[in-house]
Amino acid sequence: MTGRLPLIAADVFDAQRRLQGIAAITPALSHPELDDSAGRSVVVKVEALQRAGSFKFRGAYNALAVLDPVARRRGVVGASSGNHAQALALAGQLLGVPVTVVVPHDAPKGKIDGARTYGARIVTYHRERDDRDQVTAALADEHGYAVVPSANSPHVMAGAGTVALELLCQVPHLTAVLVPVGGGGLAAGTAVAAKHVNPRIRIIGVEPEAGADTAMSLRTGTLAELPSVPDTIADGLRHTSPAPLPWEINRVMLDDIVTVTDTQVIRAMATAFQHLKVVAEPSGAVALAALERLDLDPGAVGVVISGGSVGIGSFHRFMTDLPNQKESDRV
Amino acid sequence: MTGRLPLIAADVFDAQRRLQGIAAITPALSHPELDDSAGRSVVVKVEALQRAGSFKFRGAYNALAVLDPVARRRGVVGASSGNHAQALALAGQLLGVPVTVVVPHDAPKGKIDGARTYGARIVTYHRERDDRDQVTAALADEHGYAVVPSANSPHVMAGAGTVALELLCQVPHLTAVLVPVGGGGLAAGTAVAAKHVNPRIRIIGVEPEAGADTAMSLRTGTLAELPSVPDTIADGLRHTSPAPLPWEINRVMLDDIVTVTDTQVIRAMATAFQHLKVVAEPSGAVALAALERLDLDPGAVGVVISGGSVGIGSFHRFMTDLPNQKESDRV
Repeated sequence: MTGRLPLIAADVFDAQRRLQGIAAITPALSHPELDDSAGRSVVVKVEALQRAGSFKFRGAYNALAVLDPVARRRGVVGASSGNHAQALALAGQLLGVPVTVVVPHDAPKGKIDGARTYGARIVTYHRERDDRDQVTAALADEHGYAVVPSANSPHVMAGAGTVALELLCQVPHLTAVLVPVGGGGLAAGTAVAAKHVNPRIRIIGVEPEAGADTAMSLRTGTLAELPSVPDTIADGLRHTSPAPLPWEINRVMLDDIVTVTDTQVIRAMATAFQHLKVVAEPSGAVALAALERLDLDPGAVGVVISGGSVGIGSFHRFMTDLPNQKESDRV
Repeated sequence: MTGRLPLIAADVFDAQRRLQGIAAITPALSHPELDDSAGRSVVVKVEALQRAGSFKFRGAYNALAVLDPVARRRGVVGASSGNHAQALALAGQLLGVPVTVVVPHDAPKGKIDGARTYGARIVTYHRERDDRDQVTAALADEHGYAVVPSANSPHVMAGAGTVALELLCQVPHLTAVLVPVGGGGLAAGTAVAAKHVNPRIRIIGVEPEAGADTAMSLRTGTLAELPSVPDTIADGLRHTSPAPLPWEINRVMLDDIVTVTDTQVIRAMATAFQHLKVVAEPSGAVALAALERLDLDPGAVGVVISGGSVGIGSFHRFMTDLPNQKESDRV
């Protein structure tokens, strides 16, 4: 069944070797309050502490590292709500590859600043009006850039899969892993890598309730398309449909997919701050938010916090909106 | 000169062996914005991600691990503004030692809740009215508890020194390390351990401007006593005088001590959030705040973020008070 998939475990191990000494080995954290509230042992893999602030660095670097010298010299272009942009920018800086990133006009300023810090050229598009893939393709045509998608690429998925290899080295006894699903690249890479190491492990995708395109696709068995851009605070997961290559993997390898509300996401961001002492952006916190909703056999569960790009002002506004602010927030 | 000091490097290596597989190996993070603003390479050792939320776990566990079986059964007592309390509580839970902690009435609620989570008995005292050492000694007398000070103990300092051993494994080329100074145990442990590994490394202590008891002591050459409890947001560093044993070390081994204002501390907390994606409490952020004030030879500098116990509400209030909120906070 997995023979014809666009990603195999060997690709993830190749990526892991390319990333050795380059990507950070991110911590796998736990806290008794998380264990208590989930009723099981919980280990959180904090990719917010990855270089450039998210797991995306792994895929972007892997994709650039395999380019031939001519393509490296010409440069690359990638479209992104922000984290892939920062990741590409840093990977390009490290490998000497010129990077152009295509970002939505309403992307968080911190994410765009991040990409600029690492020397990328920024091109913006309008999320509702423009087709970002067309904008990207036009730039690629004009300048001879290689396109590096944020999810729809075997090399990018392979890089993302190294999160799971690392996590299962740190905590081999996990029986399930929860991952955020946007385009689906992290889920696909995680499923391929984790099930290679432990075929019995369950991989559970998590989407915002308002942007459940992969959940809907899994239910119907065909690639669903939402009628409009999802309205959710998880700005990195506002996809209208799954990316095709990850979807080929996720449709056969994901064990389940659950959805979470924005309120649950905000609560998870607060949990990350208070108990883990880490900053999780909304998209990064969806898997942690899903802990509340788990219906699983007992066993240790891994949770990926995929990114930490949220400004202090936004964080403040999210927390202020949170109903039933916990007692422990007050001091 | 160092022959008669209350701590030698061998004690720190002993502590490192006891802590192996028990304490977290905390990340050493960097970010281009930090390098740019400091004009040098900066590596931040994030002890906020240590178990129980601060470096204090290392010393508390080491101190409990060396107790004989009878003392372990009787239990221990320690006084703390909060982090040492949480650390003792967790160490006691792991080693099966009953723990009582003596905390000031105005300690952050999150810190006290943390100690309670790990099963410690809490006794409060009034910071201005009571003598915490008397309260602690009375409990020790009554119940036969061993006293575990937050800094004034060779075993506690040895545990704290393992931060530096770990950091210099992760980043061997540091030429200076900045550490927060309260009682002085972390600074003393750091100085002994780091100078053993690299005799040319400079160890610089950092205190809040309002609570510069160690700075004043270094200047006069004798243990200074502030007339009242310092008024600073760095609640873990509100000492009126250095602890005697760390002072014996720090007076001969600290290369310098600098002070920072509360505003600089808040700015450092914002930097930790935005660029490192980690939560630093005020006391934990003083060394990062001192980066602004460095007057050093060029070279890579290590900075210890010593703890992350700050509630979301307090964090917001600090940020709201911050003058010249940065542009990048706005989204």
